[in-house]
Amino acid sequence: STINLAVIPGDGIGPEVIAEALKVLEKAVAAEGVVLEQTHYQLGAEHWLATGETLPDEVLADLRTRDAILFGAVGAAPGDTRIPSGIIEREMLLKLRFSLDHYVNLRPSRLYGTVGSPLANPGTIDFIVVREGTEGPYVGNGGSLRTGTPHEVATEVSLNTAYGVERVVRDAFRRASARERKHVTLVHKHNVLVYAGHLWKRTVEAVAQEFPEVTHDYLHVDAATIFMVTDPSRFDVIVTDNLFGDILTDLAAAITGGIGLAASGNINMDRTAPSMFEPVHGSAPDIAGQQKADPTAAILSAVLLLDHLGYTAAARRIEAAVIADVETRDGGARSTSAVGDAIAAAL
Amino acid sequence: STINLAVIPGDGIGPEVIAEALKVLEKAVAAEGVVLEQTHYQLGAEHWLATGETLPDEVLADLRTRDAILFGAVGAAPGDTRIPSGIIEREMLLKLRFSLDHYVNLRPSRLYGTVGSPLANPGTIDFIVVREGTEGPYVGNGGSLRTGTPHEVATEVSLNTAYGVERVVRDAFRRASARERKHVTLVHKHNVLVYAGHLWKRTVEAVAQEFPEVTHDYLHVDAATIFMVTDPSRFDVIVTDNLFGDILTDLAAAITGGIGLAASGNINMDRTAPSMFEPVHGSAPDIAGQQKADPTAAILSAVLLLDHLGYTAAARRIEAAVIADVETRDGGARSTSAVGDAIAAAL
Ligand SMILES: CC(C)[C@H](C(=O)O)[C@@H](O)C(=O)O
Ligand SMILES: CC(C)[C@H](C(=O)O)[C@@H](O)C(=O)O
Repeated sequence: STINLAVIPGDGIGPEVIAEALKVLEKAVAAEGVVLEQTHYQLGAEHWLATGETLPDEVLADLRTRDAILFGAVGAAPGDTRIPSGIIEREMLLKLRFSLDHYVNLRPSRLYGTVGSPLANPGTIDFIVVREGTEGPYVGNGGSLRTGTPHEVATEVSLNTAYGVERVVRDAFRRASARERKHVTLVHKHNVLVYAGHLWKRTVEAVAQEFPEVTHDYLHVDAATIFMVTDPSRFDVIVTDNLFGDILTDLAAAITGGIGLAASGNINMDRTAPSMFEPVHGSAPDIAGQQKADPTAAILSAVLLLDHLGYTAAARRIEAAVIADVETRDGGARSTSAVGDAIAAAL
Repeated sequence: STINLAVIPGDGIGPEVIAEALKVLEKAVAAEGVVLEQTHYQLGAEHWLATGETLPDEVLADLRTRDAILFGAVGAAPGDTRIPSGIIEREMLLKLRFSLDHYVNLRPSRLYGTVGSPLANPGTIDFIVVREGTEGPYVGNGGSLRTGTPHEVATEVSLNTAYGVERVVRDAFRRASARERKHVTLVHKHNVLVYAGHLWKRTVEAVAQEFPEVTHDYLHVDAATIFMVTDPSRFDVIVTDNLFGDILTDLAAAITGGIGLAASGNINMDRTAPSMFEPVHGSAPDIAGQQKADPTAAILSAVLLLDHLGYTAAARRIEAAVIADVETRDGGARSTSAVGDAIAAAL
């Protein structure tokens, strides 16, 4: 069989880490007789500077014909004033997530053996965050009035629908049901964000009825950040909205050894469009092109990609190779490709 | 002279920790010939259960006549279904913050000597968060349509004004200017929350012109949580909106030894109404009435209160007594009043 893969290397360290992910991915699926067909797309800040394009309709249409998307990272150097701030993030990355209906933004957090957590006593950390990916404060609904004057008013509207919340909550319960501890924690701020918060809370109560084997609890987002650093072992499956999920998953990455290891999947569970897999980290322009970036997060994103497409044996083999590599890291510097080579060799 | 103090002990551990704060406060100001006149107000979840009142207009009017408010904590036990969720928080605590125009929600974070941070290498932590207190996602502007049906839509509107943002940003720069490192970090998410984010960013750029001695930078809220656990020493003054400030200050409390030590001031810098000082922690119904709560956060909130009223000598004396006490803690359990007694004795 064949995987018809779209590859968006992007900016900065994106191309470097994606090269290693492809190296590992190709070897793992070849061993099972699967052909990896790749179509590369030039998109991102560099591409915008060259062409003024963010994500043309034809490109989006073409991406829809692929089985899945492997995504590196996008974003210009922080000081680059030639690019309107946030335009690539919104008109390319978020446009992909919204257009392809990536409603499950899946972000696993696991602390491997000796990898440095900044916590003194991290304990066992092994949870997943199911972050809603297509609504909430990310919808781009807002505006400003009398902009730039002392009378300016700026709004941001968080839009939440029963349809959108229910499908992601059900996904979280399904994932919890397949895990050992079978526990879902809803994170929100329903004592302040009453309308959205209660929609989430009611939905969790309702969906929980379908999963009697799964327990669940609730945390305000502020309290959740406290537990993230004082007792992360308590978490199994966290389900939360787009913005709280953004915040919590960066924190979760930090306590499990850094964003060099944090993988994510932007998943359309209904398979009406290809899902997209990307490291949580950004394009890190400061170290780009220097073979300094850790490709592990990109490689683990390829694992999520294989899982999504049903190639679970290949996924487990890469995962085992990554864990073996990570657990024996001694803090010494290795080049991006050396890490990729080591993991590919261990397959 | 006289301090005409309003005291709202509230629920759970509120009365216990406030008793110790008053003990210390009274002794500290008496030494300077200042009389502490107290008016106690019964408000909170217990009071609501007894009377159905959250914050009657007459009580609010009466509170306005005081010099400052010392606030304990409010909130019922999590499982208590007799109280509509969040009603006390919104109709009492947030109503006070909004009605009395507490636009500076000041939350200092400092790691004292031996007090346990969950971080392996916390380094020196000494920053303040200036959290906006009167607008943003906290305005209660939202709604829901077709509530409880599969077609429900729920919104939350974040309202941000040039007036509201500018005054709190200027306050942050003023505070930074008086500190050693003189550095302001704006935390927001302007790549996604474009309208509110750019209002904040433009305002910081403009106000920064008035403070050439103060440096400033910007972090997305997700990145800020990473630095909070990997490099908290980098922060001096953080200025941010109401919701991001809520999240960051709980995390900041956690990394500096827990919410047992985290103080806050809800400050009206224009002095058109009394400011309110409260520990960041909640009412902790599980340990209420058992003399288990740490009154330190309440006592440090009294320090902020004295600073606000201009009794800086008394403030410094309490602060020194607290630091001496905290730095010699050995993890042994002391009762709430034993901690208050020790700090009062050390004055
Ligand atoms: C780049 C940005 C728009 C994005 C987000 O906020 O979702 C990133 O932080 C992430 O978490 O993938
Ligand atoms: C109780 C709640 C409304 C409050 C807030 O969100 O501001 C609390 O978390 C705080 O930080 O003081």
